[in-house]
Amino acid sequence: MPRLTPRPAQWLILGVLALVLLGTLGLLQPAAHRGTLAWMDALLLATSAVCTTGLSSVNVAEVLTPAGQLWLAALIEFGALALLVLAFGFVGLGRRGVVARTRASRELGIGAGQDFRGLLRRVLALALGIQLLGFLLLLPDMVELEGAATGTRYALLHSVMAFGNAGFGFWSDGVARLPAPSLLVLMALVVLGGIGFVTLDETERHLRGRWGRAIRPPRLSTQTKVGLNITGILLLGGAILFAALEWQRPGTLGELGWRDKLLHAAFQTTVARSAGFATLDYGQLAAPTLLLIMALMFVGGNSGSTAGGIKTTTLAVLLAATRAVLTGLSDVELSGRRVSGTLLMRALTVVTLALLAVGGGTLALMLTDGEQRSLALAFEAVSAFTTSGLSVNLTGQLSDAGKAVLVLLMFLGRVGFLSLLLAFRPAQPSYVRLPEEKEFTVG
Amino acid sequence: MPRLTPRPAQWLILGVLALVLLGTLGLLQPAAHRGTLAWMDALLLATSAVCTTGLSSVNVAEVLTPAGQLWLAALIEFGALALLVLAFGFVGLGRRGVVARTRASRELGIGAGQDFRGLLRRVLALALGIQLLGFLLLLPDMVELEGAATGTRYALLHSVMAFGNAGFGFWSDGVARLPAPSLLVLMALVVLGGIGFVTLDETERHLRGRWGRAIRPPRLSTQTKVGLNITGILLLGGAILFAALEWQRPGTLGELGWRDKLLHAAFQTTVARSAGFATLDYGQLAAPTLLLIMALMFVGGNSGSTAGGIKTTTLAVLLAATRAVLTGLSDVELSGRRVSGTLLMRALTVVTLALLAVGGGTLALMLTDGEQRSLALAFEAVSAFTTSGLSVNLTGQLSDAGKAVLVLLMFLGRVGFLSLLLAFRPAQPSYVRLPEEKEFTVG
Ligand SMILES: [K+]
Ligand SMILES: [K+]
Repeated sequence: MPRLTPRPAQWLILGVLALVLLGTLGLLQPAAHRGTLAWMDALLLATSAVCTTGLSSVNVAEVLTPAGQLWLAALIEFGALALLVLAFGFVGLGRRGVVARTRASRELGIGAGQDFRGLLRRVLALALGIQLLGFLLLLPDMVELEGAATGTRYALLHSVMAFGNAGFGFWSDGVARLPAPSLLVLMALVVLGGIGFVTLDETERHLRGRWGRAIRPPRLSTQTKVGLNITGILLLGGAILFAALEWQRPGTLGELGWRDKLLHAAFQTTVARSAGFATLDYGQLAAPTLLLIMALMFVGGNSGSTAGGIKTTTLAVLLAATRAVLTGLSDVELSGRRVSGTLLMRALTVVTLALLAVGGGTLALMLTDGEQRSLALAFEAVSAFTTSGLSVNLTGQLSDAGKAVLVLLMFLGRVGFLSLLLAFRPAQPSYVRLPEEKEFTVG
Repeated sequence: MPRLTPRPAQWLILGVLALVLLGTLGLLQPAAHRGTLAWMDALLLATSAVCTTGLSSVNVAEVLTPAGQLWLAALIEFGALALLVLAFGFVGLGRRGVVARTRASRELGIGAGQDFRGLLRRVLALALGIQLLGFLLLLPDMVELEGAATGTRYALLHSVMAFGNAGFGFWSDGVARLPAPSLLVLMALVVLGGIGFVTLDETERHLRGRWGRAIRPPRLSTQTKVGLNITGILLLGGAILFAALEWQRPGTLGELGWRDKLLHAAFQTTVARSAGFATLDYGQLAAPTLLLIMALMFVGGNSGSTAGGIKTTTLAVLLAATRAVLTGLSDVELSGRRVSGTLLMRALTVVTLALLAVGGGTLALMLTDGEQRSLALAFEAVSAFTTSGLSVNLTGQLSDAGKAVLVLLMFLGRVGFLSLLLAFRPAQPSYVRLPEEKEFTVG
């Protein structure tokens, strides 16, 4: 008998859709914008905010009124915490009971048997606390740059945008005019937002336990260890490559002192993975650098965070499987654990669907906006699908059909291909186990 | 104790390397070429022939003498049958016995327990017989086009090149001047060469059994069924998409009648998967078409054939895993069989390494030849790694460093990432089985 009550993944899709439509309607109100705002641009902007991307076809500082800007921040905040809000909804449902709760927690990346309600409260408090701290730290520089009223609003907006990993540009030069300490605050907010809420909570309790000299600080899960390790490797490796590729290049790092070269390389690598703030003119970057950033965007952040991409854990499984095959091991090993066949299947699925989405998106953009550079179109497709939000200054020049492609890619990327399609999954176990095929050549 | 005798994969690498060096030296002989031939161009050409690619930085019809052209055909023939020759070598070793033979047969995609020596003899006879038939069928058209002497040579060359899936261009317009029947012969040769030697043998015996009304015609293996199915789907789907994208485009299909439109779409899709013959000016193709061809090249042909790419079986595993996850099955099922965890690991490895090679190759070409179009460079990298041999008329314009990148990519692609790295694999089983990790979010 088909079930008529929506499942968690369907709730997620419906929730995000409703939020996007509400956001679009809000942005189209006369109080929210100056002059005219086409509905496609409003839809793109609302999707971009809810999906925590940061792509926009209009200049948000000029087109949106202060009220519109705060509306945008609210959309980002809801989008960033959507998974949490959804999960609270499930706990609130109460009588749905164990099954729904277990499903929701699996999608949030929470281990079974954890204190669900307590975890969610702690994580929400942590998320809001971090953003409040970010706001206070950004306030002085922002007020000095923009005066008291605008400065306060900008400090709030940038704290929300950085933690939500949705870096809309408020200045013509991105955030390049901010002094180094504020850039470091933004970087920290981006990393904390993209690290995953459960990982964040675990790490916080682990560190508090160690600093408080607890005899047994809470153990870190495989998920958290892998996520933190890959995050560290990608940030460091990416920054070194970025610096090497652009060190002498005029218009990007070429004219800067070595301190600024390192700062901007680190900053761009950090935000490339999901946040979309620019301190450099992306139109000026060399093609190899764009390819490097596309690779970073494609990997993205940790599961259950505001970041997109195939996620660090998927990359870890890919690399671990490769290592296992090349060293002749019969199991995939990761962080002292054996990776189950189910996880291998999921990793294959994520990579396959991500490649199809990025390839299909690029193909679609080539058809709708064929006069643009192919590399720029591919960059835009990857940026949208991974909800990274970086752009080679292209979004505003796209046709309406091209903008619709981006809206679709962002939606698919944020709601997650997997959740999207899990929603239509018949909940049937396979009763018949087929004979195994081993004598078969792959590759 | 480390083993000092080379393993099958190492024999393969050494053999291909030796053949490439021998081929380069041969091409550099005064009898083999007219005027001057730079050693890098000779190296690229020899690698391209041995790896059955078809890329060349010089015009082989103008630069090579008839003797040089026959030398090129010999290199292709040896390259195409390298795996077979290698396997014969193993059987010849005799005393190495079961272990070496089992390893070699696994790399050839042959099931355990089959009659090894008999299979190899049959396959070799089949390969040479098909090429002889192709030569005879091509002869009339070639003689009419080029006269008796050159025409005979061209018929031989094109039969070898088509079956070996290494389509070097002998005319300025590719093979566009050939009449439709000859194009169909070339297509058939390309498909038969790229279908895999073992698949070819199985299919031939299966068909002979059915046509001979045998009561029990030899069963087709999973490998063969999957390979044939995916080959059919890719050819048909690719041809339809190709025709749709280029139907009206001037300079490609636009000026042709509908029969020729269909013929050329089918032909280009067939050769895109590995053979590298052009009947259209690739510089004139639309960006979406180039992307489509890159996708076809990336998948490539069947395992154990002259074709490159990740192979149809890998694609089948990717799609089957995706279907299993989306429909909530706990096993990956393919053609009525359960796919083992080992095969999932290998598929993940093949995809990971192929993405790294293609991405790294494109990045390297962007650094060596940054003034070229990014899409053309990516196309060239995919074409070289998948040993497809199509080019947006770019190979001749590359710098020496860029040509070296192509040589490396072709070598990696043909010898196979996996074989290359299996050669350095310590033959250790994992004695300790780690606890399984299931509570972990991927994607
Ligand atoms: K973002
Ligand atoms: K080829």
